[in-house]
Amino acid sequence: MDIVIIGTGNVAYALAGLIKKSGHILLEVSGRNESELKKIAGAFDVPASSIPNFNKEADLYIVAISDDALYNIGEWLSLERKLVVHTAGSVSKEVLQAVSRNYGVLYPLQSLKKGMKSIPEIPFLVDGNTADDLALIRDFALSLSSKVEVADDEARRKLHLAAVVVNNFTNHLYALAEEYCKKEGLSFDILQPLIMETTHRIKSMSPKTAQTGPAIRNDLSTKKKQLDMLKNHPELRRVYEVMTESIVSRISDSG
Amino acid sequence: MDIVIIGTGNVAYALAGLIKKSGHILLEVSGRNESELKKIAGAFDVPASSIPNFNKEADLYIVAISDDALYNIGEWLSLERKLVVHTAGSVSKEVLQAVSRNYGVLYPLQSLKKGMKSIPEIPFLVDGNTADDLALIRDFALSLSSKVEVADDEARRKLHLAAVVVNNFTNHLYALAEEYCKKEGLSFDILQPLIMETTHRIKSMSPKTAQTGPAIRNDLSTKKKQLDMLKNHPELRRVYEVMTESIVSRISDSG
Repeated sequence: MDIVIIGTGNVAYALAGLIKKSGHILLEVSGRNESELKKIAGAFDVPASSIPNFNKEADLYIVAISDDALYNIGEWLSLERKLVVHTAGSVSKEVLQAVSRNYGVLYPLQSLKKGMKSIPEIPFLVDGNTADDLALIRDFALSLSSKVEVADDEARRKLHLAAVVVNNFTNHLYALAEEYCKKEGLSFDILQPLIMETTHRIKSMSPKTAQTGPAIRNDLSTKKKQLDMLKNHPELRRVYEVMTESIVSRISDSG
Repeated sequence: MDIVIIGTGNVAYALAGLIKKSGHILLEVSGRNESELKKIAGAFDVPASSIPNFNKEADLYIVAISDDALYNIGEWLSLERKLVVHTAGSVSKEVLQAVSRNYGVLYPLQSLKKGMKSIPEIPFLVDGNTADDLALIRDFALSLSSKVEVADDEARRKLHLAAVVVNNFTNHLYALAEEYCKKEGLSFDILQPLIMETTHRIKSMSPKTAQTGPAIRNDLSTKKKQLDMLKNHPELRRVYEVMTESIVSRISDSG
């Protein structure tokens, strides 16, 4: 397929990389921020164009822009009958109704950053406003990834929420632990094998079954000691209390 | 070295496996629970003995038992001048003062479960009551793992706390997300690549720098929508609120 990407952020970078690798033709990258546009066009050796002066002959337009910019996209983008998708987790596909008669969603359920050494496996959640458009979008997604699922607005929103929990919140726990180690003069790096094991284990075991530690044993004396140790770390202390209580609440749930 | 392990739990299993592989001699496994003792002795093809009738000629006694059992170990174990270590994160080495003149700690900073397919990399935190004992314990740990650090009671307790954060709390986020997906009829498995990427990224990037998502952008409209979606998931809702607030507090900290 001949493709135009509108947007110059993290998702635009990852998709440009995948599209170039997959044998599709990336006709142009388009965007508002001129310096960012130059960077991404240079990075992938692709023509750049300003909005709305991009190539109008593509088979697929991928709009990889912020949620806020999507909400008023009808004011500045019109593609009539061209196939258009957005890439947002929590924005309805219907925002594209104002842009074209053929639209849908191509949501990468992955944490993407510019300048990643390699692009990780990306599951795509796809949606389309007609069965034909959905089939086109799904086939396109399958040309980029082996993990593709159809998900309507509601299912996509819910998986986006779950993604925030396992990605942003998990990463925040790592950040809090790193901060704690730094303040206490300890090596955070020595925790890396444990972090890896925690994550690898749930490939073969439900996280509910995998749980260990003082909280699931309802070991109140360790809990008390650890809370005392966090006197000078109020932020981590609050997270410790809530997470411990939440783990303990699971014991009674399953009993 | 000739070794006796006292204990039949997760840590005893992992250490028995490592010791057998490393060329040391595992003389015996000893414990109170007869059926568990038979299992571990069978699993590693090692003689079993009851307490206190174990072999008294070993070079090293590894006491891998619960914290509670450690606190009164002096009442049932006496090894005079034999080198004895315990394997607990938050128990002082001094509990072994009542057992022998030569003692210390061999703490595996890893989440260990019986029946693991393979033993993951285990960093060891070691301590000893004299420089000579510490050197012996450190050398022994280095024969099992390339990651060994000397840590006194206080440093070990602090790293144990950090381990609870990155292991038990992270795993609990996975468990909450899995539970949410199940209740909503969604696939938790599709989140696996994201979970892997979140963890792999911090090998090359500080988690503080790696943070993405609605909270770090202080995207209040997504936050409000996601909280509304959690009306019927009160436990996850509470964790969502606290984690989001905690992430937001980090923005002002660094700004």
